[in-house]
Amino acid sequence: MSPQTTIIGDGQMALVLADALAERGVSARLWGPLEAPARHLAATRRSERLPGFELDRRVEVLTDPAAALSGTEIIINAIPTQFMRAVWTRLRTHLPGNACIVSVTKGIENDTLLRPSQVITETVADASRVSEGCLCVLSGPTIAAELARRLPATLVAAAVDDDLARRVQNLFNVKWLRIYRHDDVIGVEVAGAAKNAIALAAGMVDGLGAGHNAKSALLARGLAEIARLGTAMGARTDTFFGMAGVGDLATTCFSPEGRNRTCGERLGRGETLDAILASTRSVVEGVPTTRSLKELAASLGVDMPITNAVHAILFEGLSPRDAIRDLMGRELKAEQVG
Amino acid sequence: MSPQTTIIGDGQMALVLADALAERGVSARLWGPLEAPARHLAATRRSERLPGFELDRRVEVLTDPAAALSGTEIIINAIPTQFMRAVWTRLRTHLPGNACIVSVTKGIENDTLLRPSQVITETVADASRVSEGCLCVLSGPTIAAELARRLPATLVAAAVDDDLARRVQNLFNVKWLRIYRHDDVIGVEVAGAAKNAIALAAGMVDGLGAGHNAKSALLARGLAEIARLGTAMGARTDTFFGMAGVGDLATTCFSPEGRNRTCGERLGRGETLDAILASTRSVVEGVPTTRSLKELAASLGVDMPITNAVHAILFEGLSPRDAIRDLMGRELKAEQVG
Repeated sequence: MSPQTTIIGDGQMALVLADALAERGVSARLWGPLEAPARHLAATRRSERLPGFELDRRVEVLTDPAAALSGTEIIINAIPTQFMRAVWTRLRTHLPGNACIVSVTKGIENDTLLRPSQVITETVADASRVSEGCLCVLSGPTIAAELARRLPATLVAAAVDDDLARRVQNLFNVKWLRIYRHDDVIGVEVAGAAKNAIALAAGMVDGLGAGHNAKSALLARGLAEIARLGTAMGARTDTFFGMAGVGDLATTCFSPEGRNRTCGERLGRGETLDAILASTRSVVEGVPTTRSLKELAASLGVDMPITNAVHAILFEGLSPRDAIRDLMGRELKAEQVG
Repeated sequence: MSPQTTIIGDGQMALVLADALAERGVSARLWGPLEAPARHLAATRRSERLPGFELDRRVEVLTDPAAALSGTEIIINAIPTQFMRAVWTRLRTHLPGNACIVSVTKGIENDTLLRPSQVITETVADASRVSEGCLCVLSGPTIAAELARRLPATLVAAAVDDDLARRVQNLFNVKWLRIYRHDDVIGVEVAGAAKNAIALAAGMVDGLGAGHNAKSALLARGLAEIARLGTAMGARTDTFFGMAGVGDLATTCFSPEGRNRTCGERLGRGETLDAILASTRSVVEGVPTTRSLKELAASLGVDMPITNAVHAILFEGLSPRDAIRDLMGRELKAEQVG
């Protein structure tokens, strides 16, 4: 018998995961943090966040936390990183004691510098039995707009407990998704967060018209700096060279539909960050996460030249053109990976 | 004082490297293996291989091996893999004793299963003092059509002798090229060869309209199988996760101008290999190299499911659609890298 599931969030990833659960015949509820859009979604099965997508009628859309979480066994976190703490504070008294949590959020919380799964465990710690052993991270090359069209994609389900990873693998086992099990929770979560800063830079390369060779070089150097950060945080190197690492980085840097890449492209063309964010309905995770990444790298003594350049462009007024030129012009040297 | 250089070949890479040498103020000759196209290039400075490109007048185009190689200090090999043995057999008696060779060819010779630099050393062994210590491999994310427009790109110069790598780094130091030094000649050469089979598969994903998520998953799994092959051949793992590995793989899989990706896309759309090759002026290195890769993998006991699927499509009549479905549908399992 399949478990009762609840998706927390009504953004792009929440919607496409609900679609997979419904197709799999899993009982799924979707809880939206804001009344108005959730009611609109419940009534129309449509969302401005994902044009063209229609939510399966079997997915129950709710705004009451108690009703959404009552008796649920697997809770899927799809709330943008910087809003997670507030949302999970609202939810925590309603959590069933035996629920496991699957997080698909990709970012690092500002100021605390915590990964999404850490934000959850910290927030619910005194209200629930949710432990690290009952947390799974689901990540991979999954631009939501493609999942909405049910194009084939691959994810990793990373958990300390392989049985939980196996349950999650089985839960999303529909014909257009392929799930690998993994055990490096830290690595998978850091890879998912850090790739968004590189994707912003990749978009700038596009906006400047610098070409695929330059963008691919940036991808390779970006992967190296992500791996340096991750291993300094306790992750395994090989995670970054797998599906949740280079796989996710590639689709994020190359898919025209990626939000971070698209934001970077507009910056590269000369638009201001404020104007871009004001015109975007969805959260661009890479923007706040770049702040956290720069702080993390500094505190751990890790060299992240691309991430730091993106930070300087987003928050310190450096022009994308000057930044890319600086990155290309760094002193000729021997290549170093990891 | 800059050295006398000779480029062997008149294909896309030969032309764009000649452009860089001319811009750098290095004396460069270009030797073409066939009279008619070389004479056309010498007269018009244009080539059908690279529409829109004009060869700098300072580059001397020659067809006589003795004149091309007389007194030259650095010889750049840009001949397609399967033609190298015949060409170098013609050249070997004309080689100056103290010349170093830089190879930019990406492939594995059929039947012998040798890398390009090995083909050179084997072919010239009894006629010249060219040794492994005087061989450099130059590789990276460098779709030629972008280099022809002088868009920024990055390469690695790999040699056992770091002084030679430094000379090559300096030789191509123009404002649109950035060269890293490297010492893993085997790894850089295997990465450059094996990525072409993955790029054929990536093109098929495009031709089938399967999307960027699927292509990025393929890239990640392809990188893992390239790394497995390379390490079995004596290369270092980290080479595959650097510029000449994942960097080159990314541009080859994503640039619309890549020849291997384009060939794969046409296969994915249902064209036959014979029809595609008949309509292509340039050599599609991945096609013969896939034969060699399958043999190499079998002889070394390395699992290369994507490369083997590409082989089955190219030479055994498997349809791209069935192959991609087989790859996506392999038994759910834990991810393994390297």
